[in-house]
Amino acid sequence: MSYSFTALQVERMLGDWRVEGPAYSRLAEAFEVMIADGRLPAGARLPAERTFATHCGLSRNTVTAAYRVLREQGYLTSGRGAGSFVLLPATEQKHRIPSSWAADQERQDIDLAIASLPAPESILGAATRRAALDLGQYSHLPGYDLVGAPELRQAIADRYTARGLPTGPEQIMVSAGADHALGLVIRLLSRPGDSVLVDSPTYPNALDTIRALRRRPLTVGLGMDGWDTDVLEAVLRQEKPALAYLMPDYHNPTGLVMPDGVRAAVAAAARASSTILVVDEATCELGLDGGSLPLPLASWAAPRQVVSIGSMSKTCWAGLRLGWVRAATPVISRLVDLRCVVDTGNPVMTQLIGLRVLESYDELLAERREMLLRRRQVLAESLARRIPQWRYTMPDGGFSLWVDLGARLSSPLALAAARRGVKILSGGRFGVDGTLENHIRIPFATDEESIATACDRLAGAWREVTSHRRGHA
Amino acid sequence: MSYSFTALQVERMLGDWRVEGPAYSRLAEAFEVMIADGRLPAGARLPAERTFATHCGLSRNTVTAAYRVLREQGYLTSGRGAGSFVLLPATEQKHRIPSSWAADQERQDIDLAIASLPAPESILGAATRRAALDLGQYSHLPGYDLVGAPELRQAIADRYTARGLPTGPEQIMVSAGADHALGLVIRLLSRPGDSVLVDSPTYPNALDTIRALRRRPLTVGLGMDGWDTDVLEAVLRQEKPALAYLMPDYHNPTGLVMPDGVRAAVAAAARASSTILVVDEATCELGLDGGSLPLPLASWAAPRQVVSIGSMSKTCWAGLRLGWVRAATPVISRLVDLRCVVDTGNPVMTQLIGLRVLESYDELLAERREMLLRRRQVLAESLARRIPQWRYTMPDGGFSLWVDLGARLSSPLALAAARRGVKILSGGRFGVDGTLENHIRIPFATDEESIATACDRLAGAWREVTSHRRGHA
Repeated sequence: MSYSFTALQVERMLGDWRVEGPAYSRLAEAFEVMIADGRLPAGARLPAERTFATHCGLSRNTVTAAYRVLREQGYLTSGRGAGSFVLLPATEQKHRIPSSWAADQERQDIDLAIASLPAPESILGAATRRAALDLGQYSHLPGYDLVGAPELRQAIADRYTARGLPTGPEQIMVSAGADHALGLVIRLLSRPGDSVLVDSPTYPNALDTIRALRRRPLTVGLGMDGWDTDVLEAVLRQEKPALAYLMPDYHNPTGLVMPDGVRAAVAAAARASSTILVVDEATCELGLDGGSLPLPLASWAAPRQVVSIGSMSKTCWAGLRLGWVRAATPVISRLVDLRCVVDTGNPVMTQLIGLRVLESYDELLAERREMLLRRRQVLAESLARRIPQWRYTMPDGGFSLWVDLGARLSSPLALAAARRGVKILSGGRFGVDGTLENHIRIPFATDEESIATACDRLAGAWREVTSHRRGHA
Repeated sequence: MSYSFTALQVERMLGDWRVEGPAYSRLAEAFEVMIADGRLPAGARLPAERTFATHCGLSRNTVTAAYRVLREQGYLTSGRGAGSFVLLPATEQKHRIPSSWAADQERQDIDLAIASLPAPESILGAATRRAALDLGQYSHLPGYDLVGAPELRQAIADRYTARGLPTGPEQIMVSAGADHALGLVIRLLSRPGDSVLVDSPTYPNALDTIRALRRRPLTVGLGMDGWDTDVLEAVLRQEKPALAYLMPDYHNPTGLVMPDGVRAAVAAAARASSTILVVDEATCELGLDGGSLPLPLASWAAPRQVVSIGSMSKTCWAGLRLGWVRAATPVISRLVDLRCVVDTGNPVMTQLIGLRVLESYDELLAERREMLLRRRQVLAESLARRIPQWRYTMPDGGFSLWVDLGARLSSPLALAAARRGVKILSGGRFGVDGTLENHIRIPFATDEESIATACDRLAGAWREVTSHRRGHA
């Protein structure tokens, strides 16, 4: 779980930090952002001061002073000759431990770091009351089960079949969400040191999981126009990654849909390179513009060559911790065998709740779409009014805008926003090695008033970082 | 997840298989038991036929014929010169996948392999309905949280305080059950190759987890009279294991309570050997004889030297998947950091249910104790009537009798019982390398009628294996 970062990696990740003010202080702030948003994880080893100063063309004093500030603030520990390692400061830890529960709510911060909808109270409350009644049918069971309730697996399979991908319950394992599923799939189908193709940008938690399991993310750029088939094919052919982690419906953070032609090409190239496609479809039922999606990516490839991951975290609520894997039955069987090292299955009760939620799923999805369309509109209008120079493609689905800032200022922007009470991830969190510093993801999952207020604060933060920049230039 | 077994290991595990009938067929059956109960896991490599025959003083033909039977039944695959590997046969897999759900209920088998109570329907149903109402207070939360609901952590901490071990919520992480917690604790506090002291017998899932994470179980015998302080101290001093996994209140499968003197000695020896005590207290609130327990083992050692694991799986229902870790706050913080590789926290809903269950916990525990006392009595009476020669110490708490058969016939007994519709683990499953073949665990967690029927069937199975033995001798 701890890495050494080279001077080159850190320099790239830092982006354009040289805004107005003392250099050491700006440099320390830029590090602080990278630590706070997890790009420099706890335990990571930073380049030595001298090496870093030489590499970046800075004075040694600047780097020494910045590291000292970070040590004083509790972000860094430096042993005798052992190098400098990232710490999560005590105050940060105190905040982190109760994290998303009530305590956090007392602060008036708007959280744009997580793209997640509130619980659909009436549908979920009704489903929970029904589950309490259903309990009688299951109370005799021991309550340990690694693969999941047959009824729920059938209901999940039916939704794949309805999407044009015939599926039986024996192809489904219920999981504790998409991240849990992804960790198991990576463990089963690859080895430490193997490379995993990912888009750039991609889902930050997937990057964390890939790295924590000591696989190497292999990025392929994804532009405003979508996937570059030629590059995808070339990387698959040349690098033969063990896995390719893709989000064709809808991509996070861009909201793009992978077109038919790309699906066909990726499936063919993956077959040739013996790469298994790991398809994360957590938002596939959250289309916003009424168009129909292409057939699922799993339809384009051989059964053993694709593993699909789904979740109710985005459509219903992350607090349910309910996701699943769809794969060939022998793969499901091996996943179940592997799973016992990690946990002993999903709670019966959340599975019963999930089953009832699926009975009202179309109603729920309609509510969610309407809610997200309104919120997307508020975000688009607020941005047009307050920061019209930011560019983005209106997404077809999902939860967020992927905004091109037109300048490599995402980290300073995130830091300035945090000071104004808006938590937001800088663009770099969606890529590796400090790319994507000219982008930021703005989710529209929070309520309309908070979105409008957040845009006001982001506009203030943007003025600050750009005026510093002008002053400095 | 795959191991090579030596001829010596397999011979020890086999126990006394030479009952009446053709040797190759009895040998194949003995292997079948070890595969079915998980001592020979899927993927395990068996000793070569010639080696095994020589080692055991058998004719090569006997071993070859036994391996052939196993291959034909789908338990074994043998590649060209690559050795013989354990398979889970297709039919077994078909049964395993829906496993504990309704499908299994259609068979009239009595399951004594799992020691687990049915859901307390009225208390759990009421708690679930209350949780549905509580949801409104939490629906605004994103629903991701690695450490758990502050209210639940407080309620769990309060129960430790009531047991005489002052505890704050910052010392608690909510987990998806005790096994999930144990896996995280082992990962955090030891490295592959490290040894982990365990009792013999011990909890089979703990052995599985220790082995699957590539730690080495180091067994210390636990007799009918309890722990041997001298041996525990000597093993800690000489082997300096990274961890010691103990169940002082109440031990599974024996139901023993570790006395004060052993607690003090183990804590002191562990301090000297820098061993961290991992204390599984899943059944500590299920005392049956009204006596009070000694202070928790964690009271006897320094805070950083003990990690305690608790669970509602035994007191309430395994289907809740709700457990916890109690440890020093810095250890909790590091566990939370590590956890994100495995899952992203417990469902909000089961935590809200758990909180309501804890409000009625004393009532629930009283119900459970009464139920278990009745069932223990039925089991004791049935055994006295049907198989009076089996010996055991009446347990103070927990779920099961640890029975001394007086002969190394546990595996043939389990196999004969399975043919009569009773699933039961052979004694060897609670130890390593084929020890404990003269014991069997009989849980009294199932209903009274099933316990009585199971004893009838066990008596028949016992007659079969002992008469074969007499015939053979």
